[in-house]
Amino acid sequence: MSQAKRIVLASRPVGEPKPSDFRLEEHAIPTPGAGEVLLRTIWLSLDPYMRGRMSDGPSYAQPVPVGGVMEAGTVCEVVASNNPGFKPGDIVLARAGWQTHAISDGKGLAKVDPSLAPISTAVGVLGMPGMTAYTGLLDIGQPKAGETVVVAAASGAVGSAVGQIARIKGARAIGIAGGKDKCDYVKSEFGFDDCLDHRDPDLAAKLKEACPKGIDVYFENVGGAVFEAVFPLFNNFARMPVCGRIAHYNDTQAVAPKWAGSLMQHVLTKRLTIRGFIVSDFADRRDAFLKDMSAWVRDGKVKYKEFVTDGLENAPTAFMGLLKGANFGKQLVRVGPDKA
Amino acid sequence: MSQAKRIVLASRPVGEPKPSDFRLEEHAIPTPGAGEVLLRTIWLSLDPYMRGRMSDGPSYAQPVPVGGVMEAGTVCEVVASNNPGFKPGDIVLARAGWQTHAISDGKGLAKVDPSLAPISTAVGVLGMPGMTAYTGLLDIGQPKAGETVVVAAASGAVGSAVGQIARIKGARAIGIAGGKDKCDYVKSEFGFDDCLDHRDPDLAAKLKEACPKGIDVYFENVGGAVFEAVFPLFNNFARMPVCGRIAHYNDTQAVAPKWAGSLMQHVLTKRLTIRGFIVSDFADRRDAFLKDMSAWVRDGKVKYKEFVTDGLENAPTAFMGLLKGANFGKQLVRVGPDKA
Repeated sequence: MSQAKRIVLASRPVGEPKPSDFRLEEHAIPTPGAGEVLLRTIWLSLDPYMRGRMSDGPSYAQPVPVGGVMEAGTVCEVVASNNPGFKPGDIVLARAGWQTHAISDGKGLAKVDPSLAPISTAVGVLGMPGMTAYTGLLDIGQPKAGETVVVAAASGAVGSAVGQIARIKGARAIGIAGGKDKCDYVKSEFGFDDCLDHRDPDLAAKLKEACPKGIDVYFENVGGAVFEAVFPLFNNFARMPVCGRIAHYNDTQAVAPKWAGSLMQHVLTKRLTIRGFIVSDFADRRDAFLKDMSAWVRDGKVKYKEFVTDGLENAPTAFMGLLKGANFGKQLVRVGPDKA
Repeated sequence: MSQAKRIVLASRPVGEPKPSDFRLEEHAIPTPGAGEVLLRTIWLSLDPYMRGRMSDGPSYAQPVPVGGVMEAGTVCEVVASNNPGFKPGDIVLARAGWQTHAISDGKGLAKVDPSLAPISTAVGVLGMPGMTAYTGLLDIGQPKAGETVVVAAASGAVGSAVGQIARIKGARAIGIAGGKDKCDYVKSEFGFDDCLDHRDPDLAAKLKEACPKGIDVYFENVGGAVFEAVFPLFNNFARMPVCGRIAHYNDTQAVAPKWAGSLMQHVLTKRLTIRGFIVSDFADRRDAFLKDMSAWVRDGKVKYKEFVTDGLENAPTAFMGLLKGANFGKQLVRVGPDKA
């Protein structure tokens, strides 16, 4: 590969992103300056939050500028280094974005030890999605033994970890996923107590059946019909960490959900806690997360499933699919080989 | 007084309570049995939560049955006792309800020391309303020095304490109250940094002006237009303890507020915390509350204002007024003299 490739935001999507909102560009592989390293991307992580970065509405993060490289967490190899902290061959966790090569001054890079786990897990179960599940569930959700925890996108990177950690804490884990194959997998491989299909027109009734003692923790990552099914089932003192609303990311206008008029009344009478978070709010929990989660993964208590798309040029299609649940497991793009 | 009087719930109100929803009954003063005491009510506390007890919708508490005595916290004198824990002349905090006399087995009674503070404060600043302010603000709101705290019903029992405690913690306190007289009082006597009239058609704009650095804590006790004005001003990581929604207590149907469609998006992107509570959820904070609050009251750091209606027979009118903000300070009913 003598040329570098990158995918930039060609235009801000209105509603669902379309192929023309992305543009593949080729350019010369850049050369690192003083103190800099040249990174070659191996794994690119695609995550729902990226839809937010494509829009310029108010958010916790700056949007990607039109013409700018799409943002992403990546696992990269250092291929050239003018920085004493890194040497060629080092594997690092980076935010190199949707591109084959990137220059970094070393800030924000974290070395990944390939002997501990497959390096792709650094953007998965041992990375941002895993830590989102860990902190949101444990720090906000605080499930107790015997309680019922519900999470959607249960075959995905975050949801699968949420349910498995809930089970480790002695809670019942009820997943919601798209289609029978995913639901079966969530039960048989991730060990959830039950998993329901969000496409089921009777979702609300099925969820009520699956949660005979009500819901104590709802880990909110989707919104939409799932939340509407969950809402009436909240127990007193239920907790709802909110880390995403994928069902709404393509909304072109804010639509009031059917529970809108009674939400605050339930908050009051049931003493609910609703709290939004992003994983970086819990940066001081990183060591605890890595210690616990790597032990759980090693012991087989937390399993993970990866869904790999080959080639940077296919990232836009994979991302558009992710927003529709076309992935089955953590969505990754294989940008380059492990060893160049 | 040879007869006892009580006010019972004659019918469940639809919307705003009306006089015929209450009924004054006279009956013989009851005689305490073995282990029981006879209480004579001196002070009756009227509080917005009582509107909820008049309805049989789902709530954290059982409704008052039709024909049953309206519930209330009271300050009573023990006038006869067959219980070794109490002697005639003792002043106690009780839940004797809207009546001149009541029988108690002693459970749930707490002695009040008249030498420490006026006994009426046991149902006010040193009682349930004060502790609601203390726990909701400090345990959920957690104001930090320099932050902005907003509370409505700011001349009332809970709101006035919220703002004054916020100031003790170094936060700015912005009150909202009904009318110029109350707003002036909230500023001059309770020391709030500012107080706005909720009847002002420009409330949203005025609130924005009064909170140039946004809102970090909104102590929710009213809902309605006040919350709609507050909502767009939330800062990242803002906290909203929810202990009441007086603007909605007479609603006959749930109406979606104008922010309904974007609430969860703000929760997520601003990392908001919304948490409902009632004071009994924080029972283990009672000692800390009494220690702090009695010191603050003694030192003049927390002031309080009482609004007294004379005579049990006037309790329904006073309560209906309370729901419309006709009271100016903590609403009490003087049911009997301090000494019989």
